[in-house]
Amino acid sequence: MSRVIVGMTMSLDGFVSDRNGEVDRLYPDLEAMRQSEHLRAAIRSTGAVVMGRRSYEMGSGDFTGYEFQVPLFVLTHRVPEQGAKGANDRLTFTFVTEGIERVVDLAKAAAGDRDVTVVGGAGTIRQCIEAGLADELHIDLRSVLLGDGLRLFDRSASPPIDLESIGVSESPGVTHLRYRVKP
Amino acid sequence: MSRVIVGMTMSLDGFVSDRNGEVDRLYPDLEAMRQSEHLRAAIRSTGAVVMGRRSYEMGSGDFTGYEFQVPLFVLTHRVPEQGAKGANDRLTFTFVTEGIERVVDLAKAAAGDRDVTVVGGAGTIRQCIEAGLADELHIDLRSVLLGDGLRLFDRSASPPIDLESIGVSESPGVTHLRYRVKP
Repeated sequence: MSRVIVGMTMSLDGFVSDRNGEVDRLYPDLEAMRQSEHLRAAIRSTGAVVMGRRSYEMGSGDFTGYEFQVPLFVLTHRVPEQGAKGANDRLTFTFVTEGIERVVDLAKAAAGDRDVTVVGGAGTIRQCIEAGLADELHIDLRSVLLGDGLRLFDRSASPPIDLESIGVSESPGVTHLRYRVKP
Repeated sequence: MSRVIVGMTMSLDGFVSDRNGEVDRLYPDLEAMRQSEHLRAAIRSTGAVVMGRRSYEMGSGDFTGYEFQVPLFVLTHRVPEQGAKGANDRLTFTFVTEGIERVVDLAKAAAGDRDVTVVGGAGTIRQCIEAGLADELHIDLRSVLLGDGLRLFDRSASPPIDLESIGVSESPGVTHLRYRVKP
């Protein structure tokens, strides 16, 4: 059964980047993370990836060697003029301007039996949760207080959302929290 | 060796009370929490408690039957005119107007070999951490997104603070995170 999983790495005080927009403190050992069993398991179960436009542009549209070699859907207001780099038979790019429900629908169709993984940014993840589209929320909680930066969970007018913890595990410097989003 | 432990219950999105100042969503089963082994262990190892003025007033100054029957130190700008209720041979009240370092010093002296537990509120805990007075940070992470309210970790100009995870455990609806604050 395909699930929609939203998740990001967040500092204990709730930030997904620091006051300068940098993420070094959240990913101090990118290579270890890429080789972790935790990420490899996520890659195996993922059939399609959704991301927001800024997340797409963090890699300057170059996805050569990207961890997830699956169809990738970018939620954006405008389709970029320059095509993405790194496309191949498995990794394709679709730019979606019709909103969060549509991008998740398309990703679900592409993922088949596997999961849709929404990798960020913060706004895209919040939209997914608030629209009731997220089945699970996976937070990699980094053991640091950044003090300032971009928040994953900004103030929201939506009613409280109950979660159910379905797993906790640890890697060096990170606690992996998995929650089911209660309907 | 006596430690200074700061900690509170926080929603996954970082709030210690909701937009109405209520905490029901964070403590849906107060009785179960009071009887939990988790709290009982904290009570056994605690030799003195520190709290801020608003936390003190949440119980209207009535501490009859308070969980921690140890010397209690209240950080405040003004000593209240009305005395606290619930004092006894073990539970004494000291109001401290000379700031966070002084209140922690006094509590340490009273705690002896046992720990000083700083139970809140958010401002008092932040002051402790930022002044370098906290040895450990214990967060009870409640499985809920409140959307709005009072944040435990507000934006801060202090440099990033590294933590070391020293223990994760679970109770129904709560993940207990324990960190050592790196000097």
